[in-house]
Amino acid sequence: MAKRKAVLVVGAGDATGGAIAKRFAREGYVACVARRHADKLEPLVAEIQAAGGQARAFGCDARVEEQVLEMFQTIESEVGPLEVVVFNIGANVQFSITETTERVYRKVWEMATLAGFLTGREAAKVMLPRGRGTVIFTGATASLRGRAGFAAFASAKFALRALAQSMARELGPQGIHVAHPVIDGAIDTAFIRDNFPERYQLKEQDGILNPEHIAEQYWQLHRQPRDCWVHELDLRPWTETF
Amino acid sequence: MAKRKAVLVVGAGDATGGAIAKRFAREGYVACVARRHADKLEPLVAEIQAAGGQARAFGCDARVEEQVLEMFQTIESEVGPLEVVVFNIGANVQFSITETTERVYRKVWEMATLAGFLTGREAAKVMLPRGRGTVIFTGATASLRGRAGFAAFASAKFALRALAQSMARELGPQGIHVAHPVIDGAIDTAFIRDNFPERYQLKEQDGILNPEHIAEQYWQLHRQPRDCWVHELDLRPWTETF
Amino acid sequence: MAKRKAVLVVGAGDATGGAIAKRFAREGYVACVARRHADKLEPLVAEIQAAGGQARAFGCDARVEEQVLEMFQTIESEVGPLEVVVFNIGANVQFSITETTERVYRKVWEMATLAGFLTGREAAKVMLPRGRGTVIFTGATASLRGRAGFAAFASAKFALRALAQSMARELGPQGIHVAHPVIDGAIDTAFIRDNFPERYQLKEQDGILNPEHIAEQYWQLHRQPRDCWVHELDLRPWTETF
Amino acid sequence: MAKRKAVLVVGAGDATGGAIAKRFAREGYVACVARRHADKLEPLVAEIQAAGGQARAFGCDARVEEQVLEMFQTIESEVGPLEVVVFNIGANVQFSITETTERVYRKVWEMATLAGFLTGREAAKVMLPRGRGTVIFTGATASLRGRAGFAAFASAKFALRALAQSMARELGPQGIHVAHPVIDGAIDTAFIRDNFPERYQLKEQDGILNPEHIAEQYWQLHRQPRDCWVHELDLRPWTETF
Repeated sequence: MAKRKAVLVVGAGDATGGAIAKRFAREGYVACVARRHADKLEPLVAEIQAAGGQARAFGCDARVEEQVLEMFQTIESEVGPLEVVVFNIGANVQFSITETTERVYRKVWEMATLAGFLTGREAAKVMLPRGRGTVIFTGATASLRGRAGFAAFASAKFALRALAQSMARELGPQGIHVAHPVIDGAIDTAFIRDNFPERYQLKEQDGILNPEHIAEQYWQLHRQPRDCWVHELDLRPWTETF
Repeated sequence: MAKRKAVLVVGAGDATGGAIAKRFAREGYVACVARRHADKLEPLVAEIQAAGGQARAFGCDARVEEQVLEMFQTIESEVGPLEVVVFNIGANVQFSITETTERVYRKVWEMATLAGFLTGREAAKVMLPRGRGTVIFTGATASLRGRAGFAAFASAKFALRALAQSMARELGPQGIHVAHPVIDGAIDTAFIRDNFPERYQLKEQDGILNPEHIAEQYWQLHRQPRDCWVHELDLRPWTETF
Repeated sequence: MAKRKAVLVVGAGDATGGAIAKRFAREGYVACVARRHADKLEPLVAEIQAAGGQARAFGCDARVEEQVLEMFQTIESEVGPLEVVVFNIGANVQFSITETTERVYRKVWEMATLAGFLTGREAAKVMLPRGRGTVIFTGATASLRGRAGFAAFASAKFALRALAQSMARELGPQGIHVAHPVIDGAIDTAFIRDNFPERYQLKEQDGILNPEHIAEQYWQLHRQPRDCWVHELDLRPWTETF
Repeated sequence: MAKRKAVLVVGAGDATGGAIAKRFAREGYVACVARRHADKLEPLVAEIQAAGGQARAFGCDARVEEQVLEMFQTIESEVGPLEVVVFNIGANVQFSITETTERVYRKVWEMATLAGFLTGREAAKVMLPRGRGTVIFTGATASLRGRAGFAAFASAKFALRALAQSMARELGPQGIHVAHPVIDGAIDTAFIRDNFPERYQLKEQDGILNPEHIAEQYWQLHRQPRDCWVHELDLRPWTETF
C-alpha cells in the first residue's frame, strides 16, 4: 500500500505552526506536528482529523539530536516520505545586553537555531536520495536587524538565516527547495491578544497577520515549480512600518 | 454598466510581460498591455482574446510623461479601474565603466527607472482615492549587487528598488500593495534561445525561468490579503548559483 | 619640474566637501574644488592658501559631460595627476510620491547620480593608465533604505551606490580604490543650524557629525595600503539611532 | 599611582590578534592578550616588551563564563581600565550540511559566538559606568552570506554580527563604540602559507591582507571621535573578487 506524503511542522504549538499543519493536511499530506509535549497537540490533531485530514503528534525536544533523529525515522518508516519540513520554533526574549545571562543566550540559540539545524539536516538526509522536498525556516524581523534588547534573539535568528542560505545554496542544485519567509509584524495569537491588547485591536483593520494567510504562503512556496523558486520573502500587514 | 477591472503591464513586449498579461486576463481582468509600438502587441492581444479574455494594446513610450498620463487616463475612463499595475521594462546592457557613454547611462536610467517612476506615480494617483491596488516592479540580480560591466544597469535597477521601497512604505498604510520581485536567472525567451544557446539547453532540466511561472507569482502577490503582504522576494531556478 | 599630486572634490560647496579639500591640502595635495559657480569657492580657496596649502576653484556643472571632461583635462595638464577624486554632491529633497514631479525626479538623479557617473568615469580614465588612485562617492542613509517621501532621493543614492560597487569590482583589480562612505546623521552645517535649530543643539554633546572628522575618514581611506582596502563604511554620531 | 589604560584581545593566537595587540601597545596601552593556553602567548608578550610596550598573557577559554569573568576582574583590578576590547576568535570549518555533526555546529557557535557574547557583555559591564570604550568584533565574509559547506561557520558569524549590531544600537548612546569589521580575503598567516601556498604567492602583489594593516584599521576605529563612529566596514585586498 502506498504511503501518503508527509509534512512535518516542528514548533506546531503556536497559531502559525498549527495553521501550516492544517493547510497541508487539507491538501492530503499527513500532518506530523511536533512540540515538546505531545499531549498539548491533541486539540490540533483532533481538529485536522475532524476536517477529514490525517495528523500525528510527536513529543520531541528538537534541541536534542537523538529525539530529532528518532522522529524523522518514525515518520519515514511509519507515516510516509517527508515532502515538506517546516521549522517554526521561535524564542523571542528581550533583555538588555548586561542582563542577558549565559543561560538565556544559550537557550535561545538552542531553541531557535540548533533545533533548526538538527531539523534541517535530518530533512536534507531523507530528501537528498529522493532529489526533492521543501524545507522552510520561519524568520522574523530580528533575522535581518539587530536591535537594543534583542542581542540573544537576533543572534539566533541571524544564525538561522545563515543556515537557510547555506542550505539553499548547497541543496537547491540537488532538488531541495529551502525557503526563509521573514515574518514582520504581530501575528493573531492568544499571546498577542492577552499581552498586547492595544496591538491586538489592529486585527479589526487587518493590522496583524492571520496565521492562515501565513500558512497559505508556505503552501505556495511548496507548490512552486523548480524553475521558479523563492528563497526569501517578507510578510507583513499593510499598516506595519518597516 | 459596471466596468471591468483592469491590469496594466508596462513593458509587455517580452515573454514575462506577456505571460503576466495572460495570467491576469484568465482571471477576468482586462489586460492593458503597453510598449513603444502598439502594433507589435497585436499577437499578444489576439492570443488573450482567443483564450476568451479581454485585452487592449497601448503604444506608449513610458519615458515620456505625457504619454504615460494619457494612457492612464484612457484606461481609467474607457476600460475600467486599474487594480494592478506592473512595470516590467528592463534595459540590460553591459559595458566597462570607461566605455559607458553618457547617452547609454542616461538611456538605461530613463527606460528602467524614470519610466518606472512615472508608471508607479500614476498608479498611485488612481489607486489612492480607492484605497486599494497592487503595483509590482520587476527587479533583477542587478537590483541588489553592482558588478563589473554593469554600472549603468545596476544603477538603474538599484534606483527602481529604492522607488519600490519608498512607495511601499508610503502607500502600504494607504491600502496599496507595492512589491518588488527580484528575478535571478535566465528566462525562457527568444533572446536567450538565440543568443545563449548553451544556457538555453538548461531548459530541459528546468534551469531557466518559465515566464508563466513568474506570472503565477505576480498573480499570487496580487491575491495576498492585506494583513499578509510580501514586498520583496527572489525568484530563481533550482540550479542557479547565488 | 614635477607636478604636484591633485585631489578633486566635486561638490565642494558644503561643509563636508570643504573640509575634505582642506584635509588633503594639508597633506600637500593641490585641492581642486568644484561647484557650479566658481566664485562661491573663493573663501575656501583663500582659507586653504592662508594655511599654506594650494587650491584651485573650478566652476563646473557636473551634470554636463563636456564641462566635466574639460575640468579633468585642465587639472591633469595644468595642475598635476589626480590621485584622489571625491564626489560629494547631494540633492536631498522630500516629496510624497504623488507630488514628486518628473522634473524633480530627473534633476535629483542628474545631480546625485549622473554627475557622479561622469565624475567617476573620468576619474577612471585618468587613473587606469597609472594603475592607482582613489575614488570616493559620498553616500547617505537613503543609499541603503527607501522611505516614505524619499522616492527621488533614495533612487538617486541607491543608484550611486550601485555605481560605486560596480566600479569597485571592475577597477579594484586594476589598482583603483573605490569607496562609498555612508553618512548617517546630521552634519554640522549652516543649513542644519538655520533650519533644524533643535537638532543643531545636539552639537554640544557631539550629536552631529563634524565635517573635519568626516574628512579625516576620507583621508584614511586614501591612505589604506592596497592589501587592505575598505569599500563601504557607515559614519554616524554616537547618539544617532539606526 | 595612575593605572594605565588596557586593551584586551580575545583570540590573540593568530597573526591578526597579535598585530592588534602590538598596535595598541605601541600607543601605550597595556596589551592583555588571551587564548586558551597562556604559554603559547609568551613570544607575543616578549615581542611587545622588547619593543618597549607592556603586555600580559591570560589563559582563558572564552566559552566558559567564569573564566571570562575572572579575566575581566583581574584586568580591571590589577592592570587598568579596559578602554578597548577586541573579540577575534574564528572557527572556520567546512562541511556539507549532512556531514555537519551536532558537536561541530555547537562548537563553532561556542567559539565564534558564545565567547563573543561573553566577552562583549563583560566589556559592556566595565565600560558602561565610565561611559566610554570601544568593542570590536572581527567579522568575515561568512558574516554576510551563507554558502554551501559553511552552514556552521556562517551561522556563527551571522550571529556575532547580530550581537555587534544589537550592542551598537544599545550601547552607542551610552558612549560605547561597537564596531564590526568584515575581513574578506586571505590574511598573511602561517596557516595560509602552509595550506594554501598558491594563494600565499599573492602576497608578492599585495593580494593577501597584512595583519598590521588590519590592526591599523582597528586602531583608527578606536580613535574615531564620538560624533563620527563607524560601525561596519569591509576590508579586502585590491585583487579580491567580491
